[in-house]
Amino acid sequence: MKIRVGIVGYGNLGKAVEEEILKNKNFKLIAIFSRRVVVSKFNSVIEPYDVCINYKDKIDIMIMCGGSANDVEIQLPEIAKFFNTINSFDIHSKLEELIGRIDKINKENKTVSLSACGWDPGLFSIIRGLMFAISGETPTTFWGKGISMGHSDAVRNVDGVIDGLQFTIPNKEAVSLAKKGKIIEGLALHNRRCYVACDKNKKKIIESQIKNIPNYFKGQPTFVEFVPSANISKLKCNMSHKGLIVAPFRLSVKNKAYMEFSAKMDSNPAFTAKIMVRFIFAVIKLKKEERFEAFLPMDIPLSSLLSKSEREFVIKNLC
Amino acid sequence: MKIRVGIVGYGNLGKAVEEEILKNKNFKLIAIFSRRVVVSKFNSVIEPYDVCINYKDKIDIMIMCGGSANDVEIQLPEIAKFFNTINSFDIHSKLEELIGRIDKINKENKTVSLSACGWDPGLFSIIRGLMFAISGETPTTFWGKGISMGHSDAVRNVDGVIDGLQFTIPNKEAVSLAKKGKIIEGLALHNRRCYVACDKNKKKIIESQIKNIPNYFKGQPTFVEFVPSANISKLKCNMSHKGLIVAPFRLSVKNKAYMEFSAKMDSNPAFTAKIMVRFIFAVIKLKKEERFEAFLPMDIPLSSLLSKSEREFVIKNLC
Repeated sequence: MKIRVGIVGYGNLGKAVEEEILKNKNFKLIAIFSRRVVVSKFNSVIEPYDVCINYKDKIDIMIMCGGSANDVEIQLPEIAKFFNTINSFDIHSKLEELIGRIDKINKENKTVSLSACGWDPGLFSIIRGLMFAISGETPTTFWGKGISMGHSDAVRNVDGVIDGLQFTIPNKEAVSLAKKGKIIEGLALHNRRCYVACDKNKKKIIESQIKNIPNYFKGQPTFVEFVPSANISKLKCNMSHKGLIVAPFRLSVKNKAYMEFSAKMDSNPAFTAKIMVRFIFAVIKLKKEERFEAFLPMDIPLSSLLSKSEREFVIKNLC
Repeated sequence: MKIRVGIVGYGNLGKAVEEEILKNKNFKLIAIFSRRVVVSKFNSVIEPYDVCINYKDKIDIMIMCGGSANDVEIQLPEIAKFFNTINSFDIHSKLEELIGRIDKINKENKTVSLSACGWDPGLFSIIRGLMFAISGETPTTFWGKGISMGHSDAVRNVDGVIDGLQFTIPNKEAVSLAKKGKIIEGLALHNRRCYVACDKNKKKIIESQIKNIPNYFKGQPTFVEFVPSANISKLKCNMSHKGLIVAPFRLSVKNKAYMEFSAKMDSNPAFTAKIMVRFIFAVIKLKKEERFEAFLPMDIPLSSLLSKSEREFVIKNLC
């Protein structure tokens, strides 16, 4: 029997999840829920967000595809009452609080949730956790070159900015030092390149404001380039991204070791979607086992992602 | 309360596990069991292999550190009757059969076993499995430069060889093609460099025999160098090794993606030991949950490797 899937949110991620669900014969896409009026190029059923409760017995799992800040944080507590869910929530400072809150809802309503499950957070969290468990050391992550949503939002929130975005670019010197386990306190891990469209006479003040946004740009190597709006629209089409985790450590006083993981992708949302969709199998398994809790990817064994025949394939070929 | 650990086998791996156990305050090393007369430089208790059954209620887990072919395969079915066990069994073609056999013993005797748990197989199996689950493609692994135990044994088994060993070295061309997803059927992934000590007048025949050992060298780029025995003893001290897994794949017709994992280590047995010892926590947890079965690393969620405070650290810092 096919797993019946719903999608909440129909931006880049929602569209990527839709494609991923449609090409996999284990799933049936029941409906996409959006607060906006949208159209699916695959003619999927689109419903207003508010009617999703009507689908309580028609959908096995909801994939939460809204933004972390304004959507998932608000929608997840509502949706988790009625549905099993997967989200790729990426606001790190709020994750612990969120899963604590959702765990209660899961227990009360007999649903399962899996949070922070994309490529990063998600796959990269698992790898970093494994590296930490094995080495006892905290690995270092570099992102990019790629567009950072959070930093782009911060740029666009500056008064007078018509449109803007920010590319995160690893600092080569920091990468080289991190690989040797010699990161210098205070050395920025990334350079931040901002593209901004604004009124000609506001450039100076906007550049200064951007460079002083705390937590995002202040004290970090930030480059602001002013371009026409049309250029920014074009740059937004570039959804490629990269990530690198480096973990140098010691086996003993005289023996060193090193682990490294990297990923690159032409489409950030497509890679996130591929991972979220793969974890559907695990959530459905947990539901069957009546483990009504809030999970993180690190709580899921690899074998829960595999069908019986895939598990056999992995034992035969990849173990 | 400390976890009480026993070690079976006292070669390079057994010694590395001993060191790893002794430096971790969660564990107490009860005894090392060996069929040979050996001495521990840390004054650990050494017992003959045959008396290990006397320790049935004194040891929580046995770490199996014998060779895969001649030791673990024979000892594990005996030991698994009385003890929870971890092994790093690496004979790939026999793994499925072994865990099937041990699973029965685990169920009958209420013990837990974890097999094929080192860096490869083990950590690398988890990574390959994750890559496969996400991408749907089979990743490619390159090993070395480093000494291969199996291939070195094959060299030493050739008639007339006094001593020998084999370094596995990745074929650069194959690495470059594999990264692009363009591996050529039949192209050797590795070069095999053998160092052999033998009688001067036997060199020619021995070189030809080595190059024709099926499964190990035949049809693969094999280089044989003849050196004095003393040089081989020196080369054996080099326990460094490396591994690389590459996984190019497609997100869609037009979008590509790529994952890569690598590790390098000054000491192959020390890295294997570090991973085996980390997984002790998971086996003890499974024992408490009364899950008396044969497990593989892919059945263990990362969070089972972490203490409560470590899990909190990972959520706060690495998710």
